[in-house]
Amino acid sequence: MNTFGRLFRLSIFGESHGPAVGITIDGVPAGISLRSDDFITDIERRKGGVQKGTTPRQESDMPIFQSGVFNDITTGAPLTMLFENKNTRSGDYEKQRAIPRPGHADFVAHQKFGGFEDYRGGGHFSGRLTVCLVGAGVVAKKILQEISVQASILSIAGEADPDKGLQKAIDAKDSVGGIVECRVTGLPAGLGEPFFDSVESLISHAVFAIPAIKGIEFGAGFAAANMFGSEHNDAILDGTGATKTNHAGGIVGGITNGNELVFRVVVKPTSSTPKEQTTYNWETDTQDILSVKGRHDLCIALRVPVVLESVTACVLADLLLMEQKIKRVWNG
Amino acid sequence: MNTFGRLFRLSIFGESHGPAVGITIDGVPAGISLRSDDFITDIERRKGGVQKGTTPRQESDMPIFQSGVFNDITTGAPLTMLFENKNTRSGDYEKQRAIPRPGHADFVAHQKFGGFEDYRGGGHFSGRLTVCLVGAGVVAKKILQEISVQASILSIAGEADPDKGLQKAIDAKDSVGGIVECRVTGLPAGLGEPFFDSVESLISHAVFAIPAIKGIEFGAGFAAANMFGSEHNDAILDGTGATKTNHAGGIVGGITNGNELVFRVVVKPTSSTPKEQTTYNWETDTQDILSVKGRHDLCIALRVPVVLESVTACVLADLLLMEQKIKRVWNG
Amino acid sequence: MNTFGRLFRLSIFGESHGPAVGITIDGVPAGISLRSDDFITDIERRKGGVQKGTTPRQESDMPIFQSGVFNDITTGAPLTMLFENKNTRSGDYEKQRAIPRPGHADFVAHQKFGGFEDYRGGGHFSGRLTVCLVGAGVVAKKILQEISVQASILSIAGEADPDKGLQKAIDAKDSVGGIVECRVTGLPAGLGEPFFDSVESLISHAVFAIPAIKGIEFGAGFAAANMFGSEHNDAILDGTGATKTNHAGGIVGGITNGNELVFRVVVKPTSSTPKEQTTYNWETDTQDILSVKGRHDLCIALRVPVVLESVTACVLADLLLMEQKIKRVWNG
Amino acid sequence: MNTFGRLFRLSIFGESHGPAVGITIDGVPAGISLRSDDFITDIERRKGGVQKGTTPRQESDMPIFQSGVFNDITTGAPLTMLFENKNTRSGDYEKQRAIPRPGHADFVAHQKFGGFEDYRGGGHFSGRLTVCLVGAGVVAKKILQEISVQASILSIAGEADPDKGLQKAIDAKDSVGGIVECRVTGLPAGLGEPFFDSVESLISHAVFAIPAIKGIEFGAGFAAANMFGSEHNDAILDGTGATKTNHAGGIVGGITNGNELVFRVVVKPTSSTPKEQTTYNWETDTQDILSVKGRHDLCIALRVPVVLESVTACVLADLLLMEQKIKRVWNG
Repeated sequence: MNTFGRLFRLSIFGESHGPAVGITIDGVPAGISLRSDDFITDIERRKGGVQKGTTPRQESDMPIFQSGVFNDITTGAPLTMLFENKNTRSGDYEKQRAIPRPGHADFVAHQKFGGFEDYRGGGHFSGRLTVCLVGAGVVAKKILQEISVQASILSIAGEADPDKGLQKAIDAKDSVGGIVECRVTGLPAGLGEPFFDSVESLISHAVFAIPAIKGIEFGAGFAAANMFGSEHNDAILDGTGATKTNHAGGIVGGITNGNELVFRVVVKPTSSTPKEQTTYNWETDTQDILSVKGRHDLCIALRVPVVLESVTACVLADLLLMEQKIKRVWNG
Repeated sequence: MNTFGRLFRLSIFGESHGPAVGITIDGVPAGISLRSDDFITDIERRKGGVQKGTTPRQESDMPIFQSGVFNDITTGAPLTMLFENKNTRSGDYEKQRAIPRPGHADFVAHQKFGGFEDYRGGGHFSGRLTVCLVGAGVVAKKILQEISVQASILSIAGEADPDKGLQKAIDAKDSVGGIVECRVTGLPAGLGEPFFDSVESLISHAVFAIPAIKGIEFGAGFAAANMFGSEHNDAILDGTGATKTNHAGGIVGGITNGNELVFRVVVKPTSSTPKEQTTYNWETDTQDILSVKGRHDLCIALRVPVVLESVTACVLADLLLMEQKIKRVWNG
Repeated sequence: MNTFGRLFRLSIFGESHGPAVGITIDGVPAGISLRSDDFITDIERRKGGVQKGTTPRQESDMPIFQSGVFNDITTGAPLTMLFENKNTRSGDYEKQRAIPRPGHADFVAHQKFGGFEDYRGGGHFSGRLTVCLVGAGVVAKKILQEISVQASILSIAGEADPDKGLQKAIDAKDSVGGIVECRVTGLPAGLGEPFFDSVESLISHAVFAIPAIKGIEFGAGFAAANMFGSEHNDAILDGTGATKTNHAGGIVGGITNGNELVFRVVVKPTSSTPKEQTTYNWETDTQDILSVKGRHDLCIALRVPVVLESVTACVLADLLLMEQKIKRVWNG
Repeated sequence: MNTFGRLFRLSIFGESHGPAVGITIDGVPAGISLRSDDFITDIERRKGGVQKGTTPRQESDMPIFQSGVFNDITTGAPLTMLFENKNTRSGDYEKQRAIPRPGHADFVAHQKFGGFEDYRGGGHFSGRLTVCLVGAGVVAKKILQEISVQASILSIAGEADPDKGLQKAIDAKDSVGGIVECRVTGLPAGLGEPFFDSVESLISHAVFAIPAIKGIEFGAGFAAANMFGSEHNDAILDGTGATKTNHAGGIVGGITNGNELVFRVVVKPTSSTPKEQTTYNWETDTQDILSVKGRHDLCIALRVPVVLESVTACVLADLLLMEQKIKRVWNG
């Protein structure tokens, strides 16, 4: 279902070319100051059109509160935000409906929903919905307080310098992917549960809702396959649980151990590449050549860090509420 | 919580040195033939003591049905299986309680449960509980019918030949990790949902409940970071959605596309290494040297394939029930 | 949480005097025709201002679809409807904030949300939110097809004739309550589960979300306390499970038995009575006399039938999806 | 599903004539003292065979802990209890399988599970499973501490004196029902949520899992239908929210208001009456005369109070955990 979380619970809705996309957060503690201004930084970080290689589609993208906020303070009731879709050009999509785009959800959405899906701009599968995740993340970060969640790009098209990686795409007239890392400091030990709600389980569950993510690893991650146990184990230094190394990425037995939480995700290259591609045409029942013309990012990975931070912050807010580390009513 | 799934719902319980570990499956369709014999193959695959490098602890490990099976047929009511813990040597653990083992859950369990945790043999965090997952997997596989779920070892300690990898551990008197791959054929297109229950989300959620897993990737996975979009996109060949390549690993937009489902996980080296390690001693409040003596695997990855298959089968059973591809009452 | 249902899942949000109230339904099958016109009848039935004794507050109350509907057909993605709050007079409420109204949620909302609640017009506790339930019910009824859900007033202020009961209120310048009955025909046998999701459990859970409901009984209900078993038991007549009497109200062992589903609820008298009442004043810390002046119904029970039908329809849609009696994709 | 609760979560399993019935509680706080002795009082209260009119079937019924308790203290991991079925006489049931007993779940279980149900002694539908609820209640009551949950019989067969009511059954050679009331003192204000988890919603959801319950009312309940608003409203006396009357039964707007929580349930007469009854015979496809011979209670209502207390205590434990009024780790 389109729902995630237990005590900080997200319900997402909307399609790329509908009137709005939105999200309801149930379980937001009462008494948190919340204004539109709080959203500017993260909403801007997510936006395309600023950096070269990102889509020119622009929307103001500020949340319109429908509920849960009163006099700029959260009420404790469900908080619903809408993000209006203003700048849509549906004509781009309708004429190509018979030709499912490779790497996109066109084909699977058609199979799943029997052809009734809103196919315009990816519909409910669109990256557009990540603006809702970012909105929820702003609220989550507010209640995380001194806990810091920071995601950044590790590489684009294999280059540590994102500009160099993006240049590869521009030169090749193709799209590229990348790797994004997220680090969280200030977490208490003891969050998560071994079965089935390990911290890795919950984070990965949420993270794989971000379109284009195809892998995740914690701490040493896949490199652990080539390490000895004596090497991978993090020596415990003192009663706080601080460890000498952090190959576990801050999670042991599925539970936070009080060290920095570290994980990385891989973002596949944008499905919409300027290159011509072969696909199937439902109408003609033949192979067809597709050339995606719309406004698209050459590298969606560039926009992922703030989305990754956001879903991580939501997972952590939920975990901290579960462990009673966050109060359900703020002290005004 | 210690629960997973929506319509094929697992609730796991038990500790390594308690009377038994067990699992309740709620939502098992009625009318499925189920006998103890059905469990032998997978239970044997999971057992240690057979291959060199795995723990000599042996238990018969056959499920004892408490409910949900009548006359060797599932009833549709919750199915509970117990797996008795017969061969436990608690003495091995109690004397070292003040010294949390690096890489183990000792420290985090203590923090989380305030010192009330059952610390013997890892307690509720023990790999012992994976026998319950295997048991649930046997039931899940029964209802998957012609769908095939197969996991196998890709590498141990960096060696494609598991024996060579394990020899590295024996030579070094240390533990090692590995990479395990899972492939599923016969799945229909259309399983999963974009937010937040993508197939990647659900599989990874379940998979990270298996102790020692630290990363997962679907299809091309992390290699996608260095691919162009035109290269990564899988050309659609015909109306069935068959694709020329399978870099997506059978999942697009979070939804199965009818191609083979492919993913890999990394298994960290066994935390219990024969090597001496530095850790902290709660009693003396000093650093201490720990040498793990108990019966342990040098490479837990060798036992992971059947567990990985099992949790994957449970996730798929749940998804197929959600999409009404599996009947809730079998035709006797 | 503000969520109900498993496969037909409601998430409600909004406050009486916010911009809108709304509801998201996750799990609506794809392919169902849905237009604004479909809502007119039930929305009108719920409205005040038509009958004497109901509030003069009037709103057009037609749903504004945000998602999940495309070309007047459901898409299978989450369906969000907003109902705008146009005709609000907040001034009525703010001046009386220090004086919690007896029978209203003013006091408990203040305790629960630490004073941060939106107190205008009852905020999130307002009967206004039942318009969302009615909206969801319209969608649910669409997928129930030949199943009929009908609620009607059994008595108002003890009178079988609602007009006579309401006249009692008018004469006494006080508010009154009543009893509403709901009957469902066409249900298959086998819905529900003994623990903990009996049909009685699920219906009562949903029904007690309707403000002012204080009791529910199924079939013979409380009268069963004075019956002999031989009298209460419904003799089974044939292989369809048809029974001679229906004291069970169509539910045995928590499961539908294929007979008519029958239950009744009691609606307390409207809390906002024109009569003066004693209450407490937070500011003065003394007892105070309160006279409710706003626009209110003398008998909220008159508006309950359509709301009761609606939540019942939602519960049944969920149950029928659980039992695979409703398809997740309609045949266009 | 066979699960209830969010943070104090019950999963029930077992059949009347299987090896055992049992329950897993997930979310039990760590550090609570728990011994078999703690269960004696409530288990004894539930037992038949003591009073006239209750079934002579006797079992020791003490819980066998499988997990979650270590050194007589809860660990915080899932707590599973088994209650063995020792004294079963399945022969009583098998010969009458073709004749579904009126008022029993025989017919609906057959319809729901396609004939694969364990039909012996009611199988998973048996009142036997209430011993699990009582077991869970003992744990819940432990964490409720100074909160008192007390249920008692209001009437049997219309008589305030239970003995007189039962005598009616004995005289008539028939079974009878009754009304049971539950009162809870010491609850804080602010528990519950308006949509959809009102306290009435959650309590009724759990209560209707108890076999034979057919109605529930809170506070004045059905009597409210004949009251004026000025009469039903409870005047608020002071800043604690204490009210002069308690027609609301301690719940306003779905939320506890700090006053005594009061509700009543109706228990239908035992379905197994000694009287001959007409039913249908599947084998002969004709009407048949049934005479129930097994060991049965003439008035199941006599055993309901402790079960009602137990499920209420579980609901309250869950609510108190949700509102962070109960710690997840006890101070040893």
